[in-house]
Amino acid sequence: MIQKNKNPIFPSELRFDLVSKDWVVVATGRAKRPETFKKEKRQKIGLSIKKCPFCNIKTQEKPVSIWVNGKKIANEEIPKDWTAVVIPNKYPVFLPYKNLNKKIEGNLYQKMNAVGFHEVVITRNHNKSLGQFEIQKIKEVIDVYQERFLNLKKEGFVNYISIFYNHGVEAGASISHPHSQLIASYLIDTDLNKALETSRNYYQKNKKCIYCEMSEWERKAKKRIIFENKEFLAICPFASKASFEIIISPKKHLSHFEKITEKEKWQLAEALQVALGKLYKGLNDPAYNFYLHTAPCDGKDYPYYHWHWTILPKTSIWAGFELGTKIEISTIEPEKAAEYLKKQ
Amino acid sequence: MIQKNKNPIFPSELRFDLVSKDWVVVATGRAKRPETFKKEKRQKIGLSIKKCPFCNIKTQEKPVSIWVNGKKIANEEIPKDWTAVVIPNKYPVFLPYKNLNKKIEGNLYQKMNAVGFHEVVITRNHNKSLGQFEIQKIKEVIDVYQERFLNLKKEGFVNYISIFYNHGVEAGASISHPHSQLIASYLIDTDLNKALETSRNYYQKNKKCIYCEMSEWERKAKKRIIFENKEFLAICPFASKASFEIIISPKKHLSHFEKITEKEKWQLAEALQVALGKLYKGLNDPAYNFYLHTAPCDGKDYPYYHWHWTILPKTSIWAGFELGTKIEISTIEPEKAAEYLKKQ
Repeated sequence: MIQKNKNPIFPSELRFDLVSKDWVVVATGRAKRPETFKKEKRQKIGLSIKKCPFCNIKTQEKPVSIWVNGKKIANEEIPKDWTAVVIPNKYPVFLPYKNLNKKIEGNLYQKMNAVGFHEVVITRNHNKSLGQFEIQKIKEVIDVYQERFLNLKKEGFVNYISIFYNHGVEAGASISHPHSQLIASYLIDTDLNKALETSRNYYQKNKKCIYCEMSEWERKAKKRIIFENKEFLAICPFASKASFEIIISPKKHLSHFEKITEKEKWQLAEALQVALGKLYKGLNDPAYNFYLHTAPCDGKDYPYYHWHWTILPKTSIWAGFELGTKIEISTIEPEKAAEYLKKQ
Repeated sequence: MIQKNKNPIFPSELRFDLVSKDWVVVATGRAKRPETFKKEKRQKIGLSIKKCPFCNIKTQEKPVSIWVNGKKIANEEIPKDWTAVVIPNKYPVFLPYKNLNKKIEGNLYQKMNAVGFHEVVITRNHNKSLGQFEIQKIKEVIDVYQERFLNLKKEGFVNYISIFYNHGVEAGASISHPHSQLIASYLIDTDLNKALETSRNYYQKNKKCIYCEMSEWERKAKKRIIFENKEFLAICPFASKASFEIIISPKKHLSHFEKITEKEKWQLAEALQVALGKLYKGLNDPAYNFYLHTAPCDGKDYPYYHWHWTILPKTSIWAGFELGTKIEISTIEPEKAAEYLKKQ
């Protein structure tokens, strides 16, 4: 049975992700025009400044790092003019302990303590989300990320550090006040292991980084770049996992995020500000998650890896098909998404 | 730094999924008691029967299969007493075509047409969700699944068929009227390929099915089983990907769902009714997705695979950590979830 197809172009395309080796679907047959994403309703978390736990920072967990205007200060107490504070997460997923306590059940099932650290980076302004910050405030957040990364990697049982930011109820943010999170864990996840394996194999075979290869092609193809400055490239990736996905990666081949220089931090702050600003304007402040992928901090060298940030707007909900097959569905071609975001 | 731990048991545990080889976290430190899941607000899709597209079935796409009281009928027109109807999805993710049209971009990126079929199974009752159906109605849905599976597998470019059901707005259901979906595609997804590889390796090494091995242990351990009948076992799996996850698998070693017998269909209908009923009662009608994992229908034999259904209640939203690491977080031990559901 061949269904009649009103569109001249086949409306649903499978695209292969070179790194994860997963296929994604771009199903434009279910498409919305870019403008319609703009009209979607947003859920609000109705916490006033008065009731906001992060505005009332002194009532929270004891801080592990305090910042005033881009400088870390040595105080134990939070001063009145604080601009960023890092505290342990009140409901940690990973938490410190003296041993992993590995066990086996029924000679079949392995388990161990989820040992690690789970921290929250809180910035001062309650109302504006990260993309609306002034550039020096975003730079300060990156400073904090780097400082916490460098300190957490010294701890025992820490092999990987995940940094992420959730914006909006639909993206899983339970508190509206802007905050990022760091999770340091013993575990290097399967997904990263796969990316490390692919990039190592590619490097050995082609004497070149797979991410650099993709960036090079993107700069030739010129259809998925939404922004670039001297140090960073922001693109809607060929095999986008969600509509309007953006990847920000350094133009230089860099494997370890924590080695980021002062100059690169300013340039990354600009790239984040522009990319998040385009989503804010173009899609009417959508919910989104962004997260870092970087080399493990297990003391080994990963010369073939290339760190980058992924921004995933929450434009759909994973349902039975995505959960059952792990095939992700977007509804706009990355080329069209990039064209639209570029104009914003 | 060792944080003080008020609980005698370490509140966060990593568990290894034998088949996917992923770790999951059971973070009881952020735990809610089972009863609190009950109190969560549910979003409602406010479509009345009058406006419901599936109640007005004759306005929909031309049916590919029509059922009356458990029997498929040959009519082209839908009769007044229809009980189940299958139509092509109006917004298909995969759709039929004469070729795959494989292409490569920049000598780097692969793509092809998402060729396949995307169908919707609609049952008559607008208000009751599948778990509230009478047993013969659930049996009819399984009959329809099998009939469509057997017919779709004969089509060109079909190597895998995914069957799934979304219930509730939070689980991605855009229409509240109960309906299941089938997607038949050329693609065998990475996730299934991994499960096939694990089960093949286990079979070769141990001369035993990995799923049978787990079921055997569950029946000995007796702490994660929520229901069993002669043919099926319903458990909260050791490495649950979500709070209150349930897996229903046949006790016999069966690789291909579409070969299910009449007797097994009645028993599966009962197991689904009981499992979904327990979620409905225990968690106050939560949103959920359920989906089938079965052997590919590419003509090859998969003697080492074991088909099963997964029910995933939507009790949390994937945020930056889960998206970035693919490590899934639940907040209740599967043993406690099973104990609670067993009582319902």
